[in-house]
Amino acid sequence: MATPGKIARNARPANGAALLTSRDNRWLKEFRMALRGGLPTESGFVGVEGVRLVEEALRSGCPIRAVLFGESGERHRERLVPLIDRPEIAFPTLRTTDHLFEGLADSEHPQGVAALVKPRETTFDNLVRAPLSACAALLVVLAGVQDPGNVGTILRTAAAFGATGAATAASGISGTANPFSPKALRASAGAALHLPILAGVSLSILLAQLKVAGVRTLASSVREPRHGEQAPLAPWEVDWCQPVALLVGNEGAGLPEEVERSADARIRIPMASGIESLNAAAAAAVVFYEAARQRTKQLNGRKDGN
Amino acid sequence: MATPGKIARNARPANGAALLTSRDNRWLKEFRMALRGGLPTESGFVGVEGVRLVEEALRSGCPIRAVLFGESGERHRERLVPLIDRPEIAFPTLRTTDHLFEGLADSEHPQGVAALVKPRETTFDNLVRAPLSACAALLVVLAGVQDPGNVGTILRTAAAFGATGAATAASGISGTANPFSPKALRASAGAALHLPILAGVSLSILLAQLKVAGVRTLASSVREPRHGEQAPLAPWEVDWCQPVALLVGNEGAGLPEEVERSADARIRIPMASGIESLNAAAAAAVVFYEAARQRTKQLNGRKDGN
Repeated sequence: MATPGKIARNARPANGAALLTSRDNRWLKEFRMALRGGLPTESGFVGVEGVRLVEEALRSGCPIRAVLFGESGERHRERLVPLIDRPEIAFPTLRTTDHLFEGLADSEHPQGVAALVKPRETTFDNLVRAPLSACAALLVVLAGVQDPGNVGTILRTAAAFGATGAATAASGISGTANPFSPKALRASAGAALHLPILAGVSLSILLAQLKVAGVRTLASSVREPRHGEQAPLAPWEVDWCQPVALLVGNEGAGLPEEVERSADARIRIPMASGIESLNAAAAAAVVFYEAARQRTKQLNGRKDGN
Repeated sequence: MATPGKIARNARPANGAALLTSRDNRWLKEFRMALRGGLPTESGFVGVEGVRLVEEALRSGCPIRAVLFGESGERHRERLVPLIDRPEIAFPTLRTTDHLFEGLADSEHPQGVAALVKPRETTFDNLVRAPLSACAALLVVLAGVQDPGNVGTILRTAAAFGATGAATAASGISGTANPFSPKALRASAGAALHLPILAGVSLSILLAQLKVAGVRTLASSVREPRHGEQAPLAPWEVDWCQPVALLVGNEGAGLPEEVERSADARIRIPMASGIESLNAAAAAAVVFYEAARQRTKQLNGRKDGN
């Protein structure tokens, strides 16, 4: 990996690191491209911004390329010092002016702290292998979720209720916003850096792999069942303690019909008729709450020796 | 009630009603005050805008003072005709220019349809009396919810999961945004016109009344329990089939501590640590889902003869 600019990657600058003052500095260009441009660097690093997100990135154990402070962001340094100032840390801590920081930041009122982080790469096998703490794999598959904010919020909510991994579909009508874009990362509050995510996969291949791996696929359905069609299950009618993947579709149109059909079952949150459906984030909260409820109950049953 | 302008209240104008073309027309002033101003008229009518909301208002059975079409809103008339053109209907259907309609509407891209509607007044006794279709009263009490959009979304969500009524606290730190403001009505998708709502009540009196009426009060808690304090219940640990009122507090600060203490129990949605809590709407969706789940189960048990 090439090291841009004059600061060697292994030289760990103290608080007194030289101030980067040129707009054309290669580090600042890299941050600008990642944050404002929303594009990963050549070596796959993405930009995160704001003290909480940078903290999450540093805690996540994902590779870090650099941390950048604007002058007024220096006040957050103390909070991050325990995560930056360790002898084994091999990334530079950079400084720039507030003016140049504002020019590369994606947010309206930047806090003056940013980092370049490489999201953890995961494999399908890792995805379906449940961690020891969980009953079984609990996955969320995003297929057609277009708003980066929704992608982030759904990942955050899923992680908060104990999801063990996620996947996003690559292109076509199931194409999903990049979970590692600055907007999605912000909405996920960093959950996208902790949760194993298989991003940009072919939906049909993934569905076939899940079938082989014995993971039950549940399609969230937003439409009324057709005449003669089996009614979708309520979330409480599903056994969430077995390995399960919840498929979530487009905000307006839901999942493509052939995906709904190829899934093992369809689920739908029962609500009074005439009321508009919940938004994507609230619907995800309800369904993952149900999974967490059942899994907690099973866990407590085990503890009681039942 | 005084009748402004030149159109008599009982004269039901056909499609050919005269076009109101003066900004100072008293009807248009009344609509402007209600929609853009967000204030109820002297006789307590509030403004609703957009074809869906006007339809909900007409269906709700609440008193209607008038319906107003902008010229380009005429295309929605057909959808509303069955609700407007009935012999027993005694309110005028008015027409104005698109330009004047835009000047009185509160939304950015008005659909050219508005109405003045008087929200149903309810009493405490009506509020705690559960309708025949429900197991028992299921109320939501908003105390400190400041964003009108959140107030509306919570009411919509509560109604969708079978809540039987709502109340909003009047002032002080528990003061809640008016559920009948145009913004809240829009976010509620009209649910605020169907659900019995006791708006702007004294929270301490309401809590005392609920106690006397045998309605269990549950405080949604957002803070970590203090040392020695009993941990809040998970939603699944609550019996939602008995008469219950859920208290929802401020978006950031939650409920005032003395309200949490005076409630019969505190509840909190269990989530992985380190993850920010759900937003107000998603949290309400989860809790009312749990109530709906238990009530559906009880109802099915009854049907099965258990």
